[in-house]
Amino acid sequence: MTANMEHIDVLVSEVGPRDGLQMTKRVMATAAKQAWISAEAAAGVREIEVGSFVPATVLPQMADTAEVVAHALRIEGLTVAALVPNYVGAERAIAAGVHKITIPVSASETHSLRNVNRTHEQMLREVRRIAERIRALPPHRRPGFEAGLSTAFGCTLEGPVPQDRVVALAEALLEAGCDEVGLSDTTGYANPRQVRSLTLAVWRAVGQSKLSGIHLHNTRGLGLANVLAAVDLGLTTVDASLGGLGGCPFAPGASGNVVTEDLVFMLESMGLRTGIDLDALCRVREILKQELPDEPLYGMTPQAGLPKGFSPAALAQTGGSEA
Amino acid sequence: MTANMEHIDVLVSEVGPRDGLQMTKRVMATAAKQAWISAEAAAGVREIEVGSFVPATVLPQMADTAEVVAHALRIEGLTVAALVPNYVGAERAIAAGVHKITIPVSASETHSLRNVNRTHEQMLREVRRIAERIRALPPHRRPGFEAGLSTAFGCTLEGPVPQDRVVALAEALLEAGCDEVGLSDTTGYANPRQVRSLTLAVWRAVGQSKLSGIHLHNTRGLGLANVLAAVDLGLTTVDASLGGLGGCPFAPGASGNVVTEDLVFMLESMGLRTGIDLDALCRVREILKQELPDEPLYGMTPQAGLPKGFSPAALAQTGGSEA
Repeated sequence: MTANMEHIDVLVSEVGPRDGLQMTKRVMATAAKQAWISAEAAAGVREIEVGSFVPATVLPQMADTAEVVAHALRIEGLTVAALVPNYVGAERAIAAGVHKITIPVSASETHSLRNVNRTHEQMLREVRRIAERIRALPPHRRPGFEAGLSTAFGCTLEGPVPQDRVVALAEALLEAGCDEVGLSDTTGYANPRQVRSLTLAVWRAVGQSKLSGIHLHNTRGLGLANVLAAVDLGLTTVDASLGGLGGCPFAPGASGNVVTEDLVFMLESMGLRTGIDLDALCRVREILKQELPDEPLYGMTPQAGLPKGFSPAALAQTGGSEA
Repeated sequence: MTANMEHIDVLVSEVGPRDGLQMTKRVMATAAKQAWISAEAAAGVREIEVGSFVPATVLPQMADTAEVVAHALRIEGLTVAALVPNYVGAERAIAAGVHKITIPVSASETHSLRNVNRTHEQMLREVRRIAERIRALPPHRRPGFEAGLSTAFGCTLEGPVPQDRVVALAEALLEAGCDEVGLSDTTGYANPRQVRSLTLAVWRAVGQSKLSGIHLHNTRGLGLANVLAAVDLGLTTVDASLGGLGGCPFAPGASGNVVTEDLVFMLESMGLRTGIDLDALCRVREILKQELPDEPLYGMTPQAGLPKGFSPAALAQTGGSEA
């Protein structure tokens, strides 16, 4: 998370090829995934979660993740991340050579049991095994290892998830050997006040350096407001998905993930450098339109266009028309 | 703006019957407008801009505004606001007995000339005449008089609008006799940093009590993030439109106004009291669906539903799952 923050203020981490594609009816061809990743990297995106190492029987959309990783690793300057559900997935991710492994751990134990049939204790054991496996690697081959605290802002099964439980789980995961934890609003329940409160609570417990990233959904329209709360506070990595693809939308018409294009517009217009060329980013949508013609693409900035006289952060640090 | 802030933290001012309906192809029947206003007031909305006093030849959708005002005035506790473009409109609004008159004045003079064929100097003269007319009324019959600074965050014709020009115009309008000014992001150009910067600049020039309201658009998806910036700062009146109706969308699929339902969800989930019953508010959409079947209705909260275990601010001041 250090090298790729050079010359930028916020790291926009694209999760579409993983979080977006695991939801689609149509399986995107490997070459199309690779073209998408290359085009986003060329637009300036520095971190992409390119896939997940889950059994192909569970998610056929992710069967080619190793090939996609191999392609992404050839792109200079790109941090290649992958999601893994367990130790077996981590083994495959390590073999593929990813820079970063993320394992989702649900703060709601009910959700964890329902989703991966594992208690918190069982998840912690899995995390410990993965951490040990990573430590056994030569230093230059060790990937970063993050636990994504899913349902951190509430659960569709349990309802509110007590903040103390999220904090305790974050502590336990770091103790089990993760490098970092991330907060994830799996259910789209988060509000800006809660983003602040929970981030500060986790920081107090584990230190600011152990939590730099957040994954927010736009299920109830609060995605960017929650990002604002996070970025104002000092979180520096924000997940988003091109065209808002994925993110478990609850209802048709309600986008799931925060839309990368709108996120970059917000940050750049505020004078926060992302390193991303917004015009080039918006053009990447064409790949999605062609490859996934049945999927709705979200994003208001691509439709409305950039404001007249708009200066991205890299050119003018004055926040648009504040001159 | 004082009496109706009792027991609430943020006044959500519904502008749909004015800003939303002036855009629709179909003219909504007077009875339907009245039913809409009654239903929103019953849901707890305390201020509604019910229409505009413009010539019926220009906006046939607003021909019945006096009748709509007469109905709205019978609803106890409701602040009845109307938009006027000029002195003649203000005369009609006063005759109708509205509680509050808003006149839009474009910070971009190019936009002002193009839209109402008037320079800033001509607009200030109009404002002076209206203020004198109001002062000549017996105190109990004097409506509040606000100038809405449109294109305050940038103009599709001029591009960036210098902050100094907005501040100078705000000062001139207050000197000309307005009670208050409001900031309006007519073009959807605003970003959270700019909302903070411009609000503070106007406050420094004219005092906080002279600017309490903001009108934001969601054209590029930043509507609620901008609201968050405004409310965090201490602005207490936020405009919104049920179903996101109106607000000059630039492109199909891009909603214009901030959606009242999502706004209320954000505020209430943050523990900020609006006095509005969110379930009842969402049910008011049925009137729009029935009366305006061709208009797209925005709003993610109505589609996704409320979070499991959601407590509105009035019941629990803890901001959702922060417990």
